Amino acid sequence: MATLNEIASSSPDKLNVSQALITLAKTIQASNESIDAFFLCTMGLLVYFMQAGFAFLEAGSVRSKGVTNILIKNVLDAFFGGIAYYAMGWALAYGEPSNWFCGTANFFLFNMPDGRLAQWFFEYVFAATAATIVSGAMAERCNFLAYIVYSTFITGVVYPIISHWVWSPDGWLAKGFSIDNGTITSGFHDFAGSGVVHATGGIASFVGAALLGPRLYRFDSETGKPQSMPGHSVPHVALGAFILYFTFLAFNGGSQMSISNPGDGLALAIVMVNTILACSCGGTAGLIISWLTSPHWSFLETVNGSLAGTVAICSGCNVVYPWGACIIGAIGAGAYSLLSRLVLRLGVDDPASSIAVHYGGGVVGVLSVAFFDRSRGILLRWDRQSGLDLAVQILGLLVITAWSGGLSAA
Amino acid sequence: MATLNEIASSSPDKLNVSQALITLAKTIQASNESIDAFFLCTMGLLVYFMQAGFAFLEAGSVRSKGVTNILIKNVLDAFFGGIAYYAMGWALAYGEPSNWFCGTANFFLFNMPDGRLAQWFFEYVFAATAATIVSGAMAERCNFLAYIVYSTFITGVVYPIISHWVWSPDGWLAKGFSIDNGTITSGFHDFAGSGVVHATGGIASFVGAALLGPRLYRFDSETGKPQSMPGHSVPHVALGAFILYFTFLAFNGGSQMSISNPGDGLALAIVMVNTILACSCGGTAGLIISWLTSPHWSFLETVNGSLAGTVAICSGCNVVYPWGACIIGAIGAGAYSLLSRLVLRLGVDDPASSIAVHYGGGVVGVLSVAFFDRSRGILLRWDRQSGLDLAVQILGLLVITAWSGGLSAA
Amino acid sequence: MATLNEIASSSPDKLNVSQALITLAKTIQASNESIDAFFLCTMGLLVYFMQAGFAFLEAGSVRSKGVTNILIKNVLDAFFGGIAYYAMGWALAYGEPSNWFCGTANFFLFNMPDGRLAQWFFEYVFAATAATIVSGAMAERCNFLAYIVYSTFITGVVYPIISHWVWSPDGWLAKGFSIDNGTITSGFHDFAGSGVVHATGGIASFVGAALLGPRLYRFDSETGKPQSMPGHSVPHVALGAFILYFTFLAFNGGSQMSISNPGDGLALAIVMVNTILACSCGGTAGLIISWLTSPHWSFLETVNGSLAGTVAICSGCNVVYPWGACIIGAIGAGAYSLLSRLVLRLGVDDPASSIAVHYGGGVVGVLSVAFFDRSRGILLRWDRQSGLDLAVQILGLLVITAWSGGLSAA
Repeated sequence: MATLNEIASSSPDKLNVSQALITLAKTIQASNESIDAFFLCTMGLLVYFMQAGFAFLEAGSVRSKGVTNILIKNVLDAFFGGIAYYAMGWALAYGEPSNWFCGTANFFLFNMPDGRLAQWFFEYVFAATAATIVSGAMAERCNFLAYIVYSTFITGVVYPIISHWVWSPDGWLAKGFSIDNGTITSGFHDFAGSGVVHATGGIASFVGAALLGPRLYRFDSETGKPQSMPGHSVPHVALGAFILYFTFLAFNGGSQMSISNPGDGLALAIVMVNTILACSCGGTAGLIISWLTSPHWSFLETVNGSLAGTVAICSGCNVVYPWGACIIGAIGAGAYSLLSRLVLRLGVDDPASSIAVHYGGGVVGVLSVAFFDRSRGILLRWDRQSGLDLAVQILGLLVITAWSGGLSAA
Repeated sequence: MATLNEIASSSPDKLNVSQALITLAKTIQASNESIDAFFLCTMGLLVYFMQAGFAFLEAGSVRSKGVTNILIKNVLDAFFGGIAYYAMGWALAYGEPSNWFCGTANFFLFNMPDGRLAQWFFEYVFAATAATIVSGAMAERCNFLAYIVYSTFITGVVYPIISHWVWSPDGWLAKGFSIDNGTITSGFHDFAGSGVVHATGGIASFVGAALLGPRLYRFDSETGKPQSMPGHSVPHVALGAFILYFTFLAFNGGSQMSISNPGDGLALAIVMVNTILACSCGGTAGLIISWLTSPHWSFLETVNGSLAGTVAICSGCNVVYPWGACIIGAIGAGAYSLLSRLVLRLGVDDPASSIAVHYGGGVVGVLSVAFFDRSRGILLRWDRQSGLDLAVQILGLLVITAWSGGLSAA
Repeated sequence: MATLNEIASSSPDKLNVSQALITLAKTIQASNESIDAFFLCTMGLLVYFMQAGFAFLEAGSVRSKGVTNILIKNVLDAFFGGIAYYAMGWALAYGEPSNWFCGTANFFLFNMPDGRLAQWFFEYVFAATAATIVSGAMAERCNFLAYIVYSTFITGVVYPIISHWVWSPDGWLAKGFSIDNGTITSGFHDFAGSGVVHATGGIASFVGAALLGPRLYRFDSETGKPQSMPGHSVPHVALGAFILYFTFLAFNGGSQMSISNPGDGLALAIVMVNTILACSCGGTAGLIISWLTSPHWSFLETVNGSLAGTVAICSGCNVVYPWGACIIGAIGAGAYSLLSRLVLRLGVDDPASSIAVHYGGGVVGVLSVAFFDRSRGILLRWDRQSGLDLAVQILGLLVITAWSGGLSAA
């Protein structure tokens, strides 16, 4: 069979036309596979840099004596997480064959087709993100060994099984449910992981922080009122935030998983625009809320608002309008603000606000899809389809919460 | 119509050749659109990280008490800028229909075709860059509200209208001018924004800094002589600089705006090489100038020289030879050095040298194109065409200066 | 000839089929060239950010008084290196024509075909990496001028000639050797530069550190026993490490040099997975070794172990299995640990462990290929081919060591 080069330099009258056509088509397919890997690997390596973003955000949010500790934890959880995801995480999430609950093969990548390696890489960096969220909630009082065991368990077991449910074609939440004799069906929609990654990380943070108990003197021993323990470093917070802002674009964008197909580029562009608007509106809402509820507005609450807004858009960033992204971002910031106060009232000490940002933003994200989806959200189309969608999103959220919360407590 | 898969797996004798050819051509077109979006979004998200670069460069250039303040401003201006560019910036710059002066539709992205979303994202991060430059010049003495209003005004109005003039096909500077009965025409050439982004940001910095007045004790109250107020943190400056060096490559490279067309890759490569050479030569020139003019050479002047060199190459990085880039970078550093002294003599206090780096480098960039262009620069071809080119570049520069300076002062 | 647009919008019966096919093939070729440049430039700009990674890793590893100095050196060596690589480095490495020893033309990019500009950019950032490694070993006691001369010499002469030997088709190590009347041939295999970049940088570090002598009081003047001089900043080390972790993925991935060919994407994915596993296992091994050999485990040794593991996988990341990458990473960390103790015993003071990380990891990398190669490593196939492979790897390593060590000492 002729090659691309031979065809390009052939003279028209000597060309075996049909054969050449088939060669071209096959060449295009092979190139497209390569370009998809390029896309996935580039986005994935940027997502891996989120480790630095969370590390410095958390390092700046704790007191100075906790800095070294939290940075070290964030480096180590990536290492142990990598080994855990290699050994079993991937197998449980995407190993084949798989059933409705989890994958059952490809432990240690054994027998995995090479064509899935790019996906492995991208899925691993997502798993590492879910796990590293937890370090912020357990800052300043968790010993290394306990943290590493907890974090590795999340990367290797808790998170992979949820991702199987939602993102593997065999997963029960991906398959979804149908009503009206199967004429209306709905699967759980979570494009970039408001639920799978962030609600999981957020609820695991809650369980971890609750089990550890608060830092000494965090709550007055007599009245139980919280004492202020402000973060120590605005530069660290700002550095972490800036890193997260740009890497979150890769996190959401990469979730398209391919770029060579017609429409992939459009989807990517929609994701970028929605992500940056949700982040901006979340930050603005965080600033306003902080200004209305305190004598002085707080930089940290503004940053956390923007991150909660970004978390909230993960789920629907590919299907909502830009104005929807603005609203979702702002609501995400509001949810963060409410939840952070609730967590405090429950006597749970979350130094870096991981719970409020990721669970608050995550919940808003999962639910918002059912309301704001361009083509079938409740706000745009009020019918049995959109009703079922909402029911499935709520169910998925409850199950993720129960699973991650329950397993983390175990 | 057959699909790519069907053609690739077809047997030669069963193929409808003409139909298959058309399918292939359409598939290639659609893939190319996706790949262009991939390119633009990847470069755009890296450009967004420039926010961190400027923030830390400026934070290290001011006194320690100004650090928190300047970092917070740099985070906030991106948020407000995002909303402003969504609401009206894009509409004024690229909304359609448009006239010679500005766009007139697509406010809040209303009625904008989805196919332009990737461009929206890329243009927004450029607008945010122009605006954030200003924070350095107003450091340590501008209150939040005033800064945010000023910065948002730049992102939402001042900058978009200039970018319309230069980068929209309808813009009057893009259309340019003709002489000799239309046989010789010339449009304003500013590939990546030496003028549009940096001269705009630089002159707005000048106006802002002049209106605010200097920091207390910056100039001796009796003699008027400037007192030294050195930056407080080399690590912050170095971090900011390193971030800017690699993101500037995305800033200039992304300005190619597409990558799937024949020649796009070559243009990108030329831009990378010229950018890194201009940066290196600017830094070297900055070091030498600093060493010749002071008892001790200054790290900050070296870094600022490299940045001015990079700013200077933005405009012509796609059309000059590598040796041209070296010279332009070095001249950019020289312009920075001269302008920083002039600014000081005018009694204007610019803590992070935003004026000298961005306006100095920007002016050199705009003018250098007319001299160094590979095919028609004055140094390579001395004729009426290159003369008109220079006249247009000078005119564009004056207009940008007047517009941005005038509007900023308003 | 028709264009892509014309074909896509043509009606089937009006199409000149052969002509259209040739047009399509040429269009695809041109697009592929552009996409390859996109890939190479994107990876290259991320690799350039490794400058920041090494700078902060080293800055955190030295005492606080050395921070400013080392950051400044790391900025400057990139500038001077850029000019040196432009002036002569590229010419010696890849200039054409070339002989077995070095290239002989294209100084100052003179007469270089434009099509090689993307490669120039990528090769330059590699050269800059090799040179900047050295700054860590010479920290706190080398004056600027001496360091800059040394570093520029490496970027402009020492490194380019080695890269010619290994990576230019004309290079004698690339051509390799044959036995059994030419039926078995073997060339030096160093995919991403365990030997070319890291062993070179490591041995140059050794020579530099040995010639400078230790820091004052580093070794007890009476007993000669080393005194502890711990690094001063965990945040700086962590920042540097995080930057290196994600940019190393671009360093190794970009070494594929193209992405549009069938199989390029698969190669890239293999590289990503192997790199992240080697890094994780290196870090884990570093932690365990540090914990077993000291009363307290050390964060810095853990980070250095992970980096040594990453360095060790550079050479074979495209040809080993994931389990091989895990083992190679762990051995790399072990080699770092041994070598760092040996260096100390030799009375050489290497503040940032550049020698042990880069030479230790580099040696493991070069040799490991001969053992772990999927298709012909000694562990998988024990025959005359794999034996010759090992011999060539050992020879290459010795020659690189002798060349870089000898020239650096000169």
